[in-house]
Amino acid sequence: MNLEDPQTPFLALDPAIVAANAARLRHRLGATTLRLHVKTAKSVEVARLVQGREPGPVTVSTLAEAEAFAGAGYRDIVYAVGIAPGKLARVAALRERGVDLVVLLDSVEQAAAVAERGIPALIEVDCDGHRGGVAPDGPELLAVAGALRDVRGVLVHAGESYFADGDDALRAAAERERLAAVGAAGALRAAGFAAPVVSVGSTPTAHFAADLTGVTEVRAGNYVFFDLVMAGIGVCGVGDLALSVVVTVIGHRPDKGWILTDGGWMATSRDRGTARQRVDQGYGLVTDLSGAPHEDLLMTDASQEHGILSMRPGSDRPLPGLPVGTRLRVLPNHACATAAQHDRYHLIAPDGRGVAAVWERIRGW
Amino acid sequence: MNLEDPQTPFLALDPAIVAANAARLRHRLGATTLRLHVKTAKSVEVARLVQGREPGPVTVSTLAEAEAFAGAGYRDIVYAVGIAPGKLARVAALRERGVDLVVLLDSVEQAAAVAERGIPALIEVDCDGHRGGVAPDGPELLAVAGALRDVRGVLVHAGESYFADGDDALRAAAERERLAAVGAAGALRAAGFAAPVVSVGSTPTAHFAADLTGVTEVRAGNYVFFDLVMAGIGVCGVGDLALSVVVTVIGHRPDKGWILTDGGWMATSRDRGTARQRVDQGYGLVTDLSGAPHEDLLMTDASQEHGILSMRPGSDRPLPGLPVGTRLRVLPNHACATAAQHDRYHLIAPDGRGVAAVWERIRGW
Repeated sequence: MNLEDPQTPFLALDPAIVAANAARLRHRLGATTLRLHVKTAKSVEVARLVQGREPGPVTVSTLAEAEAFAGAGYRDIVYAVGIAPGKLARVAALRERGVDLVVLLDSVEQAAAVAERGIPALIEVDCDGHRGGVAPDGPELLAVAGALRDVRGVLVHAGESYFADGDDALRAAAERERLAAVGAAGALRAAGFAAPVVSVGSTPTAHFAADLTGVTEVRAGNYVFFDLVMAGIGVCGVGDLALSVVVTVIGHRPDKGWILTDGGWMATSRDRGTARQRVDQGYGLVTDLSGAPHEDLLMTDASQEHGILSMRPGSDRPLPGLPVGTRLRVLPNHACATAAQHDRYHLIAPDGRGVAAVWERIRGW
Repeated sequence: MNLEDPQTPFLALDPAIVAANAARLRHRLGATTLRLHVKTAKSVEVARLVQGREPGPVTVSTLAEAEAFAGAGYRDIVYAVGIAPGKLARVAALRERGVDLVVLLDSVEQAAAVAERGIPALIEVDCDGHRGGVAPDGPELLAVAGALRDVRGVLVHAGESYFADGDDALRAAAERERLAAVGAAGALRAAGFAAPVVSVGSTPTAHFAADLTGVTEVRAGNYVFFDLVMAGIGVCGVGDLALSVVVTVIGHRPDKGWILTDGGWMATSRDRGTARQRVDQGYGLVTDLSGAPHEDLLMTDASQEHGILSMRPGSDRPLPGLPVGTRLRVLPNHACATAAQHDRYHLIAPDGRGVAAVWERIRGW
């Protein structure tokens, strides 16, 4: 099988780029534990490509991911979404199977429900007002810890770093994340809690943190694939993008300057994350099937099963001549969202043309 | 099982509302054939709820849908996305099984490939510059027809009607759609092609067409569920929305006026279709688990597995007190996109609390 064979649209994944992205961050973090977030790839095979065959520490965004990784032998898992009490039975069932599954919470209500079952928890600490979490220096932190039986430590996610712009802003976001985590852990320890885990992370801050003093582990997930949003804030280059959507040309509208494809938002997702960046990439950058860019050609609009390609506004290049049937690749704004539209990856072989393997994705909750 | 039981987030579907939406359009169209577009529901069971047990004429957006419906006995299918030559083998295989699967195209290149296999086709005609299609009165129409062996007729989709605003604009969009279709069919017939099918449709135009003279069938799909975009342009009321996402409260940020839930964009999609309407509904309107509105409470932001609920800007109502563990429903911007994030529907029982059935969705391409 090669990239001309599967029915379009489908996901193409370049494992050589994944391996390079994995090695770069692994090298950068040195001895610090890297707890891979599997929410982007949702694939045990991709995790093995990143971490090696031996199950490593992972972060999950759903219990479906936790169950799939537990089934593959992973035993050290953090579920990094604030726990709903109705999910604790599934958490307990995994723990009974010998999985050290740790939950996240930020309220006394959650802590009481978790303590009742003897489940260990990380306390979510806020560093930038992005979503949940207690203040690193307020009374809630100790109140939540006091309601728990097993305070594993603290977890901070610098969600606002996805909107940072430039190296200085990214370094500042990373330091804010570290200070919140280390400060909260210090407050817990001063109050008598062991709180061994100090967990920070996001793809941007993991790549820009200048100091990890006091941090015990870093979480990141998007970096295994990267995407145009990450390229837009300077965390990677476009050449580091491992994931693309293969589409086929189905028509032309020369009067509009359009090429139509069979890849619409069902194939790319509705994510328009670069719309608020300095360079709006539409629904994605277009390359040929080998990955060579069609300069200035963007997927500019989408309906459910149609993509519209046109030249970047202001470009003086001509629309390339791409006959009906031509296969192209679209590099996505947001790898997590684009990958979620599909059930499997087609792995690009070393020759750049073959399909080396097909890997299934974990779905649902 | 009742709505408190399945793990959140999940899709709740009210079959009584689907049946009412189906009956309303069926009544409106009288004797005109209604070719249900199954791209929204992607479910044979939903099609049966709409059309009855006897397989009716359907429109599909993927060959996966065509294959699933063929497997359930449906024999009259239009694949309404411009055909890629690489998909013709699957089309031919379905036709060999006795399915009258008709393809869509708008170029001589496609017509030549289709004619080679003796597959019947509808010619896509443009009425509003929305995406593909030949002009209803230009030379391309006859050139495409001349390259085909079986010209089944013409198909027009007023895609711009999704952005129309108010009854007059919707009626005008419907009449533009009809005129393009009837005009093109007339041109084909004058040139000696039988062109028996004159197919028009979209959910907005199907509900606003004042005249269907010359039209042989109307296509619509979204109307079985409806959504906030359709309510925003006046095609339905919020009470006509059949689909919602059930989520659980997982936290609070009183300092921000936020309620956090376990339903992020993975559960709702990234579709923000109401952002360009007069009333921006964020990621959706929030109701309690029974469907009663929490007035002015919106899902205002989303990360992958987190939803943020807050009051509509300018509202003077207080944020409702909703403890951790409370289940809520979110009414979506765009039913097609939200449903696509899930693998199944949970059917709401007549008592409004039970789960009457679980129906799987068709996925992939």
